[in-house]
Amino acid sequence: MNKLLIVGTVAFDAIETPFGKTDKILGGAATYIGLSAAFFNVKSAIVSVVGDDFPQEYLDLFTERNIDISGIEVVKGGKTFFWSGRYHNDLNSRDTLDTQLNVLADFNPVVPADFKDADVVMLGNLHPIVQMGVLDQLTATPKLIVLDSMNFWMDCALAELLQVIKRVDVITVNDEEARQLTGEYSLVKAAAKIHAMGPKYVVIKKGEHGALLFHDKKIFFAPALPLEEVFDPTGAGDTFAGGFTGYIAQSENLSFKNMKNAIIYGSNLASFCVEEFGTARLQRLDKDEVHERLQQFKALTQFDIALEQE
Amino acid sequence: MNKLLIVGTVAFDAIETPFGKTDKILGGAATYIGLSAAFFNVKSAIVSVVGDDFPQEYLDLFTERNIDISGIEVVKGGKTFFWSGRYHNDLNSRDTLDTQLNVLADFNPVVPADFKDADVVMLGNLHPIVQMGVLDQLTATPKLIVLDSMNFWMDCALAELLQVIKRVDVITVNDEEARQLTGEYSLVKAAAKIHAMGPKYVVIKKGEHGALLFHDKKIFFAPALPLEEVFDPTGAGDTFAGGFTGYIAQSENLSFKNMKNAIIYGSNLASFCVEEFGTARLQRLDKDEVHERLQQFKALTQFDIALEQE
Repeated sequence: MNKLLIVGTVAFDAIETPFGKTDKILGGAATYIGLSAAFFNVKSAIVSVVGDDFPQEYLDLFTERNIDISGIEVVKGGKTFFWSGRYHNDLNSRDTLDTQLNVLADFNPVVPADFKDADVVMLGNLHPIVQMGVLDQLTATPKLIVLDSMNFWMDCALAELLQVIKRVDVITVNDEEARQLTGEYSLVKAAAKIHAMGPKYVVIKKGEHGALLFHDKKIFFAPALPLEEVFDPTGAGDTFAGGFTGYIAQSENLSFKNMKNAIIYGSNLASFCVEEFGTARLQRLDKDEVHERLQQFKALTQFDIALEQE
Repeated sequence: MNKLLIVGTVAFDAIETPFGKTDKILGGAATYIGLSAAFFNVKSAIVSVVGDDFPQEYLDLFTERNIDISGIEVVKGGKTFFWSGRYHNDLNSRDTLDTQLNVLADFNPVVPADFKDADVVMLGNLHPIVQMGVLDQLTATPKLIVLDSMNFWMDCALAELLQVIKRVDVITVNDEEARQLTGEYSLVKAAAKIHAMGPKYVVIKKGEHGALLFHDKKIFFAPALPLEEVFDPTGAGDTFAGGFTGYIAQSENLSFKNMKNAIIYGSNLASFCVEEFGTARLQRLDKDEVHERLQQFKALTQFDIALEQE
């Protein structure tokens, strides 16, 4: 079974949407990536840090899904990273109410020995120096390195971010971040500039408007599944990344055709994530539901046009 | 050859985008619809009104494309409808600088005798009473009636708009208009409410984010083609409607499968429209380019996932 190494936050979130609010619940980029990738036949590990306020039942959740947690450092007397946010009525924008870095402030990632030769590496959104620190510990070149980042690092650690971007195969950013990173409004032009920074594949996430995959002159697009109600968008991008990397790690196939499938699986899993608060929907999701939704994605996008009769 | 009846404005536009500005150029919903539908094997007619300031060469443009202009009333001493607008930097929003209704203020549409039994009727954006006036002149039930409208009529002629909506098979509105018409943020819920108002098919246009087709519980999505540069979005929605109705009129097939194809052709033609100011790109477009771009739409959206190996 192929190995997927995941780096990112494991955290507490408190979320407010127009539909309700939560207390501190399980959150963090690596959490969503891990739970999503667990739908594929891969052996995965999370590298992260939590405080000793982090419940054992959450760690068990990972273990039950065949996710190695030996790379999750538990800091004695430390407090777990906490984020709190409130979504606006359209759910497309949000205000951060509180961010407490806590144990994340001094995080030194340690890659478990068994994952230093991982086949696929997913660098979840974190300080680019931490992401780089993980790459430096690898003993073999992975088949694929995927990087997620965000505007915050473009604002305050751009030089370091550009360095790590140079070292990855795939980057996933949202449309606004792609524009900020390149100064180009057109996503086609932005993707071309990001290609030139290093990544052979550029994934631009547009939230409810889907995701674009760019490679050379090729472009593939996957829509988001139109839903009756988006309940909580938290973690959708990370769930997408988990589906993407999980599928690639399982299939061991880096053709563009297979990358397209990975984008579809990422969108598929993300469409479940947003149906309930936090990780709730992912936790009770089963493979049959994922397969069924794949048929919905096909119905939504596939057409068959014979050449026009003259 | 099947008949397509088009009702809508034929106008002068003056457009400002971040890339430049135009003097008075050819514009109007029926103009874009007609030029776009002309790529299909249909016999079409435009019902509209212009002043005698409207150049003969523009009328010739229609005639050359096999568009019957006997329903375009030329008002002696009258001035043609004029619209002027300035797009913002992102090209997603615009300010109207000037609107001069002129001859449109007293427009009484007259359907040419030969088109009273049209196979497909495209009611372009106009006062709903004018749209209704056209339907009342038909002597046979068309195979398909398609309605375009906009927020302006929802604000100032809602009762009349709802009456005409009740009588059509397909409605095309943009996402904001769908929300305004129904009070639902979710486009899935909005489409369901619009279905209940009459139309069996609901097309929601999302501009650069593509278009959705809703029918019963079925949904189909066509992306906009990602372009290096969108030069001028004016007329894109009408060009989409022209491609949609032109394809349906040519193929005489109202299956959902064929409706999907029509949505793709609408998106295809709209992707050309935005490449240059006004109707310039549509005017010099040829069928080979349309076919070639169809391949791009396929590459952009089609995938082939075998069921996951266990």
